[in-house]
Amino acid sequence: MKSKVMIGVMGPGENATPEENELAYDLGAAIAKQGWVVLSGGREFGVMNAALKGASDNNGLTVAVLPGETTKGASSYAQIKIITGMGSARNNINALSSHVLVVLGMAAGTASEVSLALRANKKVILLAQDEISTLFFKKIGTYKVVTVSTIEDTIKLIKDYVSLNQIR
Amino acid sequence: MKSKVMIGVMGPGENATPEENELAYDLGAAIAKQGWVVLSGGREFGVMNAALKGASDNNGLTVAVLPGETTKGASSYAQIKIITGMGSARNNINALSSHVLVVLGMAAGTASEVSLALRANKKVILLAQDEISTLFFKKIGTYKVVTVSTIEDTIKLIKDYVSLNQIR
Amino acid sequence: MKSKVMIGVMGPGENATPEENELAYDLGAAIAKQGWVVLSGGREFGVMNAALKGASDNNGLTVAVLPGETTKGASSYAQIKIITGMGSARNNINALSSHVLVVLGMAAGTASEVSLALRANKKVILLAQDEISTLFFKKIGTYKVVTVSTIEDTIKLIKDYVSLNQIR
Amino acid sequence: MKSKVMIGVMGPGENATPEENELAYDLGAAIAKQGWVVLSGGREFGVMNAALKGASDNNGLTVAVLPGETTKGASSYAQIKIITGMGSARNNINALSSHVLVVLGMAAGTASEVSLALRANKKVILLAQDEISTLFFKKIGTYKVVTVSTIEDTIKLIKDYVSLNQIR
Repeated sequence: MKSKVMIGVMGPGENATPEENELAYDLGAAIAKQGWVVLSGGREFGVMNAALKGASDNNGLTVAVLPGETTKGASSYAQIKIITGMGSARNNINALSSHVLVVLGMAAGTASEVSLALRANKKVILLAQDEISTLFFKKIGTYKVVTVSTIEDTIKLIKDYVSLNQIR
Repeated sequence: MKSKVMIGVMGPGENATPEENELAYDLGAAIAKQGWVVLSGGREFGVMNAALKGASDNNGLTVAVLPGETTKGASSYAQIKIITGMGSARNNINALSSHVLVVLGMAAGTASEVSLALRANKKVILLAQDEISTLFFKKIGTYKVVTVSTIEDTIKLIKDYVSLNQIR
Repeated sequence: MKSKVMIGVMGPGENATPEENELAYDLGAAIAKQGWVVLSGGREFGVMNAALKGASDNNGLTVAVLPGETTKGASSYAQIKIITGMGSARNNINALSSHVLVVLGMAAGTASEVSLALRANKKVILLAQDEISTLFFKKIGTYKVVTVSTIEDTIKLIKDYVSLNQIR
Repeated sequence: MKSKVMIGVMGPGENATPEENELAYDLGAAIAKQGWVVLSGGREFGVMNAALKGASDNNGLTVAVLPGETTKGASSYAQIKIITGMGSARNNINALSSHVLVVLGMAAGTASEVSLALRANKKVILLAQDEISTLFFKKIGTYKVVTVSTIEDTIKLIKDYVSLNQIR
């Protein structure tokens, strides 16, 4: 087998809206259809769970980078469970391990993942993001941050990035 | 000796402006004069270095939570050096170990520290912060985020917080 | 797809002997043939590399939990690359994420992985281990540590453990 | 103020014997009398607590590197509390942050700290250690591991090391 393209999907947990969860599910499905791996924070609710479910339902491989010391509270759709035992510090692992991060919705944990990704010079795609968050991350991330409003545009951007950077 | 009150000072590193460094120095000095410990990311430049210097020049105790695996690149004003070897994931330790965080200037690393602190329900004081950053962190942190424009007001806020929460 | 059984393979890096590398290759192959995932420290030499190669050559899925902040120095046989950026502290992630750890050869890093696994109450299989190391880990790990001398016995033990604990 | 010499004291927690706790107390006291800082895992029992108490009772400065996400369960004798939220992975921070590690008693967590310290090429002093543990760590740590039977010899060894390596 070959090395996998890893796409991080980040967004709110407990407080995700139904629309955010639905978008995350469809995004996970679309990523899986490209043959890419979906990586998320791996808990059993919110964007991290929905993205893994969308991928898993479409024959995709899913990776959960879990905050706790056991798999308690992990998403049922996590196939590879990385147990970090380091709480929110695991957000840096999410950022570093993703070739590209897609962010939808916003919460404190999400904001830390975007910030850590930008600190590590990662490409970040803000999907259907609110105006204040967009202004803020454009300010601190400049060219590394791109904004899109649809899943189709998200997939197109990732394809270009993967091809340009010869990620295999 | 007694347990110490720990005040985290966060802000840009390499790209800090002269004004930010000066403000950080004065803030570190003012914190030290209260008998509180200054904690920072501990590298040899920017806000993290200036705050430690300000405290150290005023008989304050300083703690550097370093990203590397050695003390290479550490501030000369760091008295207690915590060597984490975990890069930017150490930003979560900065957030968790500070009773209160004071933030001046903004960069990707700084944004991750503020976000992780809010995730952990910490009190965050934004000192002389720009408008977009203020709007963003008020949005994700609500009542946990307070804004001030002077060091005097910063110290007054911390005093109230330390007293109210009986931190010893 | 279903959740995966994760088997950690631990042993020396730079200083692995040719015999240890060969045994690690055969062990990785045997684990892959059971449909289990091989997890290792993921660098490009020693036991961690050989085990991933053995698995990869036999259609197995491989996970590398890397110490650095990039994939530099990663094994070519790592399919899922978890980039931790936390140096040897990632050894705790190896320990926590493995349902069972198999250890062959001994070095300081290996010893930390076995110790952290025992701290987390994980099952540890010592394969063809030397006498002093066996005595030491039996002393600190008691019943959690089992010793075997062949790959066949290793696989049999894991099978029993996976079945008994209903790991899926 | 100047940068501090940091001496890590490692040993069993819940299962420490009364003799080990007493030795840890006296060791903490002896380290404090030299003006050095005592660093430990910082919980409220065992060797980590006793060493901090010994230092604190003798006007020494104490640093606790805590595994949890709050100060719950921290030693009352911890003056500087570093809250890591990363469980046993914080053992690597203990190892990296100590100029010299002194180890008394043995348990899985202790073994991980010694192993991680040797991995990082740190000097490790085994104080009144049992025969199997001594044989094991001499085997994997060679010249980096020294054995002593008294606190006096421990202090003498650290003094020589600090002087030789110009640690300030």
